[in-house]
Amino acid sequence: QVYKIAAIPGDGIGTEITDAAVQVLDKLAAVLGDFKFEWTTFDWSSKKYLERGWYMPDDFKEQLCKHDAIYFGAVGWPSVPDHISLWNMILPIRNSLNQYVNVRPSRMLKGVVSPITQVRDKPSDLDWVIIRENSEGEYAGHGGTTHGHASHAIATEVAVFTRTGIERISRFAFETARSRPRKKLTMVTKSNAQRHGMVLWDKVFYEVAKEYPDVEHDKMLVDAMTVRMVNNPQSMDTILATNLHADILTDLAAALSGSIGIAPSSNLDPTRGCPSMFEPIHGSAPDIAGKGVANPVGAFWSAAEMVRWLGKGQLDSVADKFIDAIENVISSGVKTRDLRGSSNTKEVTEAVCAELEKV
Amino acid sequence: QVYKIAAIPGDGIGTEITDAAVQVLDKLAAVLGDFKFEWTTFDWSSKKYLERGWYMPDDFKEQLCKHDAIYFGAVGWPSVPDHISLWNMILPIRNSLNQYVNVRPSRMLKGVVSPITQVRDKPSDLDWVIIRENSEGEYAGHGGTTHGHASHAIATEVAVFTRTGIERISRFAFETARSRPRKKLTMVTKSNAQRHGMVLWDKVFYEVAKEYPDVEHDKMLVDAMTVRMVNNPQSMDTILATNLHADILTDLAAALSGSIGIAPSSNLDPTRGCPSMFEPIHGSAPDIAGKGVANPVGAFWSAAEMVRWLGKGQLDSVADKFIDAIENVISSGVKTRDLRGSSNTKEVTEAVCAELEKV
Ligand SMILES: CC(C)[C@H](C(=O)O)[C@@H](O)C(=O)O
Ligand SMILES: CC(C)[C@H](C(=O)O)[C@@H](O)C(=O)O
Repeated sequence: QVYKIAAIPGDGIGTEITDAAVQVLDKLAAVLGDFKFEWTTFDWSSKKYLERGWYMPDDFKEQLCKHDAIYFGAVGWPSVPDHISLWNMILPIRNSLNQYVNVRPSRMLKGVVSPITQVRDKPSDLDWVIIRENSEGEYAGHGGTTHGHASHAIATEVAVFTRTGIERISRFAFETARSRPRKKLTMVTKSNAQRHGMVLWDKVFYEVAKEYPDVEHDKMLVDAMTVRMVNNPQSMDTILATNLHADILTDLAAALSGSIGIAPSSNLDPTRGCPSMFEPIHGSAPDIAGKGVANPVGAFWSAAEMVRWLGKGQLDSVADKFIDAIENVISSGVKTRDLRGSSNTKEVTEAVCAELEKV
Repeated sequence: QVYKIAAIPGDGIGTEITDAAVQVLDKLAAVLGDFKFEWTTFDWSSKKYLERGWYMPDDFKEQLCKHDAIYFGAVGWPSVPDHISLWNMILPIRNSLNQYVNVRPSRMLKGVVSPITQVRDKPSDLDWVIIRENSEGEYAGHGGTTHGHASHAIATEVAVFTRTGIERISRFAFETARSRPRKKLTMVTKSNAQRHGMVLWDKVFYEVAKEYPDVEHDKMLVDAMTVRMVNNPQSMDTILATNLHADILTDLAAALSGSIGIAPSSNLDPTRGCPSMFEPIHGSAPDIAGKGVANPVGAFWSAAEMVRWLGKGQLDSVADKFIDAIENVISSGVKTRDLRGSSNTKEVTEAVCAELEKV
């Protein structure tokens, strides 16, 4: 079996960790699988944008859809305003390829220490999967500016919620919760202050909930949710939140589980009509870009989730072995600075390849 | 000097901690001040709403404006949908009384332990003032629902940002930063994904920044901000964020500094045209309401900030002594369960009163 992967390294450390992920995935295929990867690299980046005036060609969707999956590094660079780079790269891909689910697991990898005392003392207390609505809400792109240069300037951000959007993401969240041992879903909202879209969100969620009587569910306001994540991490399992709320909560979850550098994400089209996209949740990190010190673990974990997705259930044990290898390397002390280690990207990558040889 | 205070105990533990705050403030005035408080209690609550169909009378603004300040407990009760209670009580007060600033300090009180290792080991690492835009943005109330009961339902939340709103809150944040020893302001935004209102936010902020060359400033995306709060708390001092972002970040800040039960807030009209309002940031906590175990420290700290505001610089030392007394009581071990103690509301309140007798 050959999997055709579109690699979009993007900006900054995105290119460094994509190189690392490709190297490790090829090793994984060679050692463990009866499959291999065929890579097409797309040189879409802020650097290229500055040279030629565009990020992606008009037929980007067509080009990407020729692949079985997309591997994405990071986008964003100081010389381009962030809203230009993101609305020309990552957000159009998520939207136009029907990737309406973003799955972001957080748990304590072996050898990683949590900054919160409770989890440091009992790592099993933190084991979450955050399901992020990835296609609408606060990222709908609606809104505008009037009188921008005048003293009476006004600008809006319009979050758009549809029943279709809420229903399908709620269903995905319940299915995920059902597939995990605890069968427990926490829904996040801010329907006390946001009284239109968020009220529809709650309403549709509770309708879908009726289809899943075997899944326990509760509701949290997004502000109080941060408190619960710090104080009662063990009280949660699967978590569902809007595009913006989950964006915030998943960064917090990454920090609480040790580092933003280890956290993976899967942008999924659950209908499998379009290829899904896998990317670490960290950004292009201009401050450390080019130094070869980026933590590739988030990239590896994302790669493992890509393998799992491609395998449709057949490659779960391969993905698990991959993650075991990552954990063994971290436990052995080969880790980057953000994890209190002193290894660089290359050292961690080579150690993971060596570890894969062993399994 | 007599200060006329409108007390709105509201719902749940709001009534318990307001009682406690009134008792302690009267003691403070008796012991330390050449001033006293004259209280008018407004019985506006979810309970009353269920009886009579309204939360506040039409002339609520007129009634409240007869006072020098407002002391608010909490609003929200399970038998009323949250968006009804909040849009009939706390949000209309904030909006119609021109309370466009919400000031939320977070620092380690003596005797309180942080759940994050770094701050637990070095409490001085966490000392922030979060300035929350309190009048517009994501809480503008705009938006609506169409086809609510159909499968093609759509609902929007419209965040509204105005140059006036951004300018005045930025200026307040810079003034606050300037008044503190570190003269350092961190501005929070999400202008990479939210490309209209948030871009205006950034633009106006940087214009105002030019007026404050003596204040160092930097910018954070709201998601990355949660990571920095956990990992580098010592790198920040004054923080400015939108209504929703700050709502989320201040709950996180409260958790990181020991408990949501200790955190105060001041809803200010800096022009002093309308009375300002002081309230702990916690809610009505239906789960512990009526049990007499709520932590009154957030209410006391809010009361201390009210004293500071009323004094216009003349009562700062009184407010500081008040906070010292609170810290002495906590350090002596008289504290509620959320702070790993076993005292109830009454015991903490009496201990603070006794401590005030001593200073
Ligand atoms: C880069 C940015 C647009 C993105 C987001 O906000 O979704 C990132 O923060 C993420 O979490 O994937
Ligand atoms: C009660 C609610 C409307 C309020 C808010 O979101 O502003 C609360 O969470 C707060 O932080 O004061």
